Amino acid sequence: MNIRIFFALIIMSSALNSEENFGIVVHGGAGVMSGLSEESQQEIHKKIQETVSQAYSILEEGGSSIDAVELAVSILEDSPLFNAGRGSVYTSDEIQEMDASIMEGDNRLAGAVASVTTIKNPIKLARKVAEETKHILLVGDGAERFAREIGVEIVDREYFYHKERLERVLNSKNKISKLNNESDKIGTVGAVALDRNGNIAAATSTGGMTNKMPGRVGDSPIIGSGTWAQNGVCGVSSTGHGEYFIKYQVAREVCARIEYLNQTLENSAASIINELKELDASGGLIAIDHEGNIASPFNTKGMIRGSQTNKTNLKSDIY
Amino acid sequence: MNIRIFFALIIMSSALNSEENFGIVVHGGAGVMSGLSEESQQEIHKKIQETVSQAYSILEEGGSSIDAVELAVSILEDSPLFNAGRGSVYTSDEIQEMDASIMEGDNRLAGAVASVTTIKNPIKLARKVAEETKHILLVGDGAERFAREIGVEIVDREYFYHKERLERVLNSKNKISKLNNESDKIGTVGAVALDRNGNIAAATSTGGMTNKMPGRVGDSPIIGSGTWAQNGVCGVSSTGHGEYFIKYQVAREVCARIEYLNQTLENSAASIINELKELDASGGLIAIDHEGNIASPFNTKGMIRGSQTNKTNLKSDIY
Repeated sequence: MNIRIFFALIIMSSALNSEENFGIVVHGGAGVMSGLSEESQQEIHKKIQETVSQAYSILEEGGSSIDAVELAVSILEDSPLFNAGRGSVYTSDEIQEMDASIMEGDNRLAGAVASVTTIKNPIKLARKVAEETKHILLVGDGAERFAREIGVEIVDREYFYHKERLERVLNSKNKISKLNNESDKIGTVGAVALDRNGNIAAATSTGGMTNKMPGRVGDSPIIGSGTWAQNGVCGVSSTGHGEYFIKYQVAREVCARIEYLNQTLENSAASIINELKELDASGGLIAIDHEGNIASPFNTKGMIRGSQTNKTNLKSDIY
Repeated sequence: MNIRIFFALIIMSSALNSEENFGIVVHGGAGVMSGLSEESQQEIHKKIQETVSQAYSILEEGGSSIDAVELAVSILEDSPLFNAGRGSVYTSDEIQEMDASIMEGDNRLAGAVASVTTIKNPIKLARKVAEETKHILLVGDGAERFAREIGVEIVDREYFYHKERLERVLNSKNKISKLNNESDKIGTVGAVALDRNGNIAAATSTGGMTNKMPGRVGDSPIIGSGTWAQNGVCGVSSTGHGEYFIKYQVAREVCARIEYLNQTLENSAASIINELKELDASGGLIAIDHEGNIASPFNTKGMIRGSQTNKTNLKSDIY
C-alpha cells in the first residue's frame, strides 16, 4: 500500500473512531445501602435511568459533554433521593451546606462552589463560575452573592427540608460515640461524559457529611480530588470519604496512571479504589476514557450508578 | 564479603544518608518585582534569611519538618512585606480574605483554611484543622468559629490594615481595563522542608489576588495544587496565578513526574513551570526531594526565595 494512503487511512480511522464513541456514566453515591426497601430501590433505578437517558440524548444528538454532565447532575440535585441539592444532609448546625464542581477536558475549563446554602442547583452555579469569572472556586457568601448577581436560581431553606435527615443529624448528635451513620457519610452525585467531538467532562455535587462541622469542605468541589476531566485521557467523578480522596488526589490520579504508566482505565480506577480500601477509606468513582471505555469501581457494599454509551446499553445498579 | 554484612552495610548507609540530609526552602511570592528600592530589597533579604535560619535550626536540632515549615510561614505571615497574614492584599470589598494549607508526607496529614478574615496566622489554624479535626478544609465562618473554640489567635481587622495596598485596590477598581496589578497578583508565601527522619512537609499561605471577588479561593489552600508533601518523593509549595495551578495540579504534578516518570526534582519542577509559561500562567514553586535536593524555578521576573540544607549554605534571592 502507498505509504500516504496508509497514513490517510490511519488518520481517517482515528477520526471516525473519536466521532463514533460517546457515552455517559452517573453515580448517586456509595455506601452501605442497607435498609433500602424494594420500593426505594425501584425509585432509585427509575431516577438513575431517566437521568442517564436524558444526558445520553444530548450526546447522541451531537451535544457537548459539559451540557450532558450538568444536566445529569442537576436532575439528581433536584431529586430528594440523593445527598446533593434538594436531598442534602445536615451539618451539626442543622442546616445544609452544599459543594459542587465541574470541569471540561478541552482547555481544562473548571468551576466550583463550596458551602452554599440557598442555591437550588450548585452544579449550575459551578459552571457559571467556570464560564463567567476568572476564578475557579467561590465559597460561602461570596458564591451566594455571585449567584444573585447573575440570576442563578435561589430557593428558601425550606426547599431543602427533609424530616428524616434532620432527625438523623439530631440522633447522631446524641450519640457522640458514633458520630456519623456510615450510609450517609459518603453520599454524593456525579457524572462523566465523552461527546462525539472527543471532549470529556466531569461534574460532582454533594451535601457533604451528616453532622459535619460548619465550613467543612470535602473533595467534591476540589478539582483533582472529586472531579477531573482531561481530553485524550479520562474524566472522573468520585464519591466517598472526602478527606482521603483529597490526600490521594483520586480523580486526577486515575488519569495520571493512564497518562504516565500506560494503565487501562479499568486497571487504574480499580487499583486506586483498592488502595483506598487498605487505608479504610470508603468510596468509589465513575470514569470514562477518550475511547468511551467506562469504569465504576467501589469498595463499599453498594454504589448507585448508571451508564449508557454507543457501545453499551442503558443500565443501572445499586450493589 | 559475607552477603549479610553487605546488606547490613547497604541498610546502614541508606539510614545514615536519610539521617544526614535535611533542609528548608522558603518563598515570598513570584512577580514582576519592579520598583523595589534597594532598601526594600535589603529588608526582604534580611527577613527571608532570618526565616530560613530559624527554620533550619529546628531541623538541625532534630526537629520535625512540619514544625519547620509552620514556623517559617508564620514568620512571613507576621511580616507586612509579604502578601499573607499581616501583609495580605484587599478583595474588591476592601477587606482581606486569607487562605493557607499545610501537609506532612508521613501519612499525608493535611489541613487547610480558606476565606478567613480575623486569624493572625492562618497557617497555624490550618495545622490545627489537620491535627484536631477529621476534616482537611474549613472555610469562612466555620473556620473562624473553630479558631475561637480552640484558642487560635484572633486579631482585629486593623491588624491587617495597610495603607498602600488599600490605595492599590481602590485604584485598580477605578481601572476596569487593568483589573489587577501583575506584581500583586501572585504573591504568596510558602515553605518546604525535609527533616533528619526523612519526613517531608510543605506549607503555603496567601492573601490572594488584589481586587479578587469575595469568596474566591485560589490554589494556596488546595492540597495538590498549592501544597503537596509525599515522603520518599518530594514536597512542593507553589505561588502564581492560582487558577492555572489548580487546573494543572502543579504541586502534586511535580511529585507525580518524579514518582511515575523517574524525572529528577530539578527537571520535573522546571518543565512544569515552563509549560505554564506557554499558557501565560505566571508563577513559580519551591520544592525539596527525599534526598534533600532543592529546586525553585519561576517564569516571572523574580521570585523571593531562600534556602539552607545540610549540603548548601544559607542564601536568599529575589531575581
